[in-house]
Amino acid sequence: MYKLVLMRHGESQWNLENRFTGWSDVDLTDLGREQARQAGLLLKQNGYAFDLAFTSVLKRAIRTLWIALDAMDSMYVPVGVNWRLNERHYGALQGLNKAETAAKYGDEQVLVWRRAYAIAPEPLAEDDPRHPRFDRRYARLEPAQVPATECLKDTVARVVPFWNDSIAPAIKAGRQVLVTAHGNSLRALIKHLDGISDDDIVHLNIPTGQPLVYELDGDLKPIRHYYLGDAAEIEAAMAAVAAQGKAKQG
Amino acid sequence: MYKLVLMRHGESQWNLENRFTGWSDVDLTDLGREQARQAGLLLKQNGYAFDLAFTSVLKRAIRTLWIALDAMDSMYVPVGVNWRLNERHYGALQGLNKAETAAKYGDEQVLVWRRAYAIAPEPLAEDDPRHPRFDRRYARLEPAQVPATECLKDTVARVVPFWNDSIAPAIKAGRQVLVTAHGNSLRALIKHLDGISDDDIVHLNIPTGQPLVYELDGDLKPIRHYYLGDAAEIEAAMAAVAAQGKAKQG
Repeated sequence: MYKLVLMRHGESQWNLENRFTGWSDVDLTDLGREQARQAGLLLKQNGYAFDLAFTSVLKRAIRTLWIALDAMDSMYVPVGVNWRLNERHYGALQGLNKAETAAKYGDEQVLVWRRAYAIAPEPLAEDDPRHPRFDRRYARLEPAQVPATECLKDTVARVVPFWNDSIAPAIKAGRQVLVTAHGNSLRALIKHLDGISDDDIVHLNIPTGQPLVYELDGDLKPIRHYYLGDAAEIEAAMAAVAAQGKAKQG
Repeated sequence: MYKLVLMRHGESQWNLENRFTGWSDVDLTDLGREQARQAGLLLKQNGYAFDLAFTSVLKRAIRTLWIALDAMDSMYVPVGVNWRLNERHYGALQGLNKAETAAKYGDEQVLVWRRAYAIAPEPLAEDDPRHPRFDRRYARLEPAQVPATECLKDTVARVVPFWNDSIAPAIKAGRQVLVTAHGNSLRALIKHLDGISDDDIVHLNIPTGQPLVYELDGDLKPIRHYYLGDAAEIEAAMAAVAAQGKAKQG
């Protein structure tokens, strides 16, 4: 039996401001850093020790990983950084406030953009300075690989090859692996692992900064999964994520 | 022409306490963190942008790199961590105060241990809990690769293959490379690059937290090298390193 730990980054500045983030390289809040530290301590207390970690090229995921590894006194763990673990690209919605966008376009339209499996928001214009083709970290990709918007289906299409080519072989080679990524790149991975349907995956809400353990059989099929942290805390965090797209918040 | 940037970690707790460190996994002081941040800002101001970084498995070098990359807003740079870039293993001297050791054994004996090219201090005992064979980060090495002590010659013998197999090919492939390592692993690398003699290399003192730029020709032969920072500051820092082994300090 293998174990894999997945973790969504801690709270980011735009999580806090309730804005669509996508590939915008927003940093963690102080709470997000503390979540990362607590996650590292929790992993350490539970006897986890990693041989290898994977993360995106976005700083909120990298910093979450760094802080967690530091808290585990395991800064030496090799880290594979890859754009394929990035958050879903949110196109022209990036930077907009979720509640304001909902007030303007209606809750339903925002829910479509946020949760329809195969419908992407408007793309960023080719000459928009926020387009990833102007960012040096994507300079070595094929132009066709660089998105200007994505639906979750697009995210799945780029995450799964990275699972197959990099993460899965490492697990099968006996490496203890930690993946620190984003709400939608983790949804994509979990959809693939658990064989969740297109309709159901959009309702899966992953709380920030909470280690999620997958136990896998010899073929890397999931046997069971569970959050390491306090159950009530995780329930509240998942409900908060689900509520973000509503025009009125509590 | 290629450029390579080398940097010794910022001040560590045992630099401050004037103790032999070697493979002891000592952290940076607040000054060491600030040195790393200043180095990152200096690199950024001078237009450096890295595609790849290498460091040891020791946290003072890793943290220096992390802080510098963060200051450059380049946390996404892939990092190769490898034990071959570790500080020279100082054997049974690890943890001892340099001045006290000099007072006990004499300045000359300490200078031999610190600076003779082919003479190693007493090894750590096989059952010493500080022996690297008990440390999981070295668990995948061949037993013969795990040192209980080293002279600089031994350090050169493990650093040069890493240069040949990992760093040099990356530079030749056009990658902008940063190496963040230790006084003696950098000595080993510089000895190899500049063809410095066994006698002369031991007198080369490398200041902490100062980016050292090497310009290399198409065969990776050095054309020239220079520190990016303020010359007077670097002179003072090198003199401080040279003075550490003396029984009496100013």
